[in-house]
Amino acid sequence: MLNPTTIFVTGGSRSGKSTFARRRAESLEGRKVFVATAMPIDDEMRARILAHKRERGGQWDTVEEPLDLVGVIERLKDRYEVIVIDCLTIWLTNVVLAWEDRLVEGGIVRLAERLRQVRGDVDILIVSNEVGMGIVPDGALSRRFRDHAGLLNQMVAEVCDEAYLIVSGMPLRLK
Amino acid sequence: MLNPTTIFVTGGSRSGKSTFARRRAESLEGRKVFVATAMPIDDEMRARILAHKRERGGQWDTVEEPLDLVGVIERLKDRYEVIVIDCLTIWLTNVVLAWEDRLVEGGIVRLAERLRQVRGDVDILIVSNEVGMGIVPDGALSRRFRDHAGLLNQMVAEVCDEAYLIVSGMPLRLK
Amino acid sequence: MLNPTTIFVTGGSRSGKSTFARRRAESLEGRKVFVATAMPIDDEMRARILAHKRERGGQWDTVEEPLDLVGVIERLKDRYEVIVIDCLTIWLTNVVLAWEDRLVEGGIVRLAERLRQVRGDVDILIVSNEVGMGIVPDGALSRRFRDHAGLLNQMVAEVCDEAYLIVSGMPLRLK
Repeated sequence: MLNPTTIFVTGGSRSGKSTFARRRAESLEGRKVFVATAMPIDDEMRARILAHKRERGGQWDTVEEPLDLVGVIERLKDRYEVIVIDCLTIWLTNVVLAWEDRLVEGGIVRLAERLRQVRGDVDILIVSNEVGMGIVPDGALSRRFRDHAGLLNQMVAEVCDEAYLIVSGMPLRLK
Repeated sequence: MLNPTTIFVTGGSRSGKSTFARRRAESLEGRKVFVATAMPIDDEMRARILAHKRERGGQWDTVEEPLDLVGVIERLKDRYEVIVIDCLTIWLTNVVLAWEDRLVEGGIVRLAERLRQVRGDVDILIVSNEVGMGIVPDGALSRRFRDHAGLLNQMVAEVCDEAYLIVSGMPLRLK
Repeated sequence: MLNPTTIFVTGGSRSGKSTFARRRAESLEGRKVFVATAMPIDDEMRARILAHKRERGGQWDTVEEPLDLVGVIERLKDRYEVIVIDCLTIWLTNVVLAWEDRLVEGGIVRLAERLRQVRGDVDILIVSNEVGMGIVPDGALSRRFRDHAGLLNQMVAEVCDEAYLIVSGMPLRLK
């Protein structure tokens, strides 16, 4: 049996990141759980969540966790062989709305640290988003979010064994 | 003689995508046609179109087709050896303005299907744009456009033989 | 001793571009100077500049030059072995604010030309930004900036010996 692997998957919106992560997860053995960070707060979001659920089909368990990813990894790591977390930037949006700004960076550091610690215990695939390759946004809030997202991606990617940038459905291997 | 190839070229704005596609096309043998999807609706657009035309020089025929790419491929494939379509996201903008939203996805599927069918008949180079790597846009319309563009790039890239992401004028090979 | 090298480093905001350039510079021998193009015009910018300065530590000299990069390269190239310029898009912002629009392109051409000429005299690392992979911005000014930035990245990357796209802290080699 192969060693459990921690895999970081990033890309633009609708680039095929989730599909790439799901297929890679389905190629791995064992019980699989999908951790959805999105909250069905409006119709647009509800439709996206449902569409993703249908794509995964019945062989997956789904857990919704908007904020406490450290806790959810702790709870799930002994009950499943494969955990997919989708996605980090939605989690970050939830965190930014829920916490004071000065606490966000600490939350990112704790998440990366937890991922480093469970490396080798369970296969984890983490989906994130590229949000920093457009024009500088007007709002200070958007600029701060972009900064947090960049830090998050760097810190999480660093503790992963593999990392990919998905473009138009195809992977560029980062490490 | 080499087999005709279908090539997908994507990248950010002014990344050198069109130049890459044009040079690649000029390295191929046979009569060449450039399919422009942009409409000269204002001075800014008119200036861009003219600048591109000057770069291509006199050895190219140019066809303007804002909407019916399936039809234009059909008409041109027996009269030319090399077809460049530039670019898919402008076409998508035209389609989104002209059609009802629920019809857009069908149009994308039909275009990808047509490209799959003509594979091997004629060299086709298709230029597209990355639009999904910035911050989530405020407007629902922009978010839908981004979703459509992501789907479009995935579906078209999938039926192509080669695919490239152009960054600062240089190609990263996707497949 | 190795030949001096000109290295282009691009990527999204907070992708780890500056860190990559700094580490690469620190692996090179000789006196090092950091050319900061950012002006401490508000608290947000002042905080960023200070944070970067702390990361570099005491072994670096720092020169602030918002506009005249051609002149600064000329002045520094015989006094240092390694020059880091960080970053080109901030320089472009300064240039766009200071100069008439029709002069911007000429300034880009002169900078690229100067970099080509000093190639082989001194190690130069140039940090830039990807700003063209988001949705088309609403404002004509933002679109023009994006166009200028795309041209700038293409022209500067072309005269460099090496080029990298940094994603989530990891480099994709462009050339």
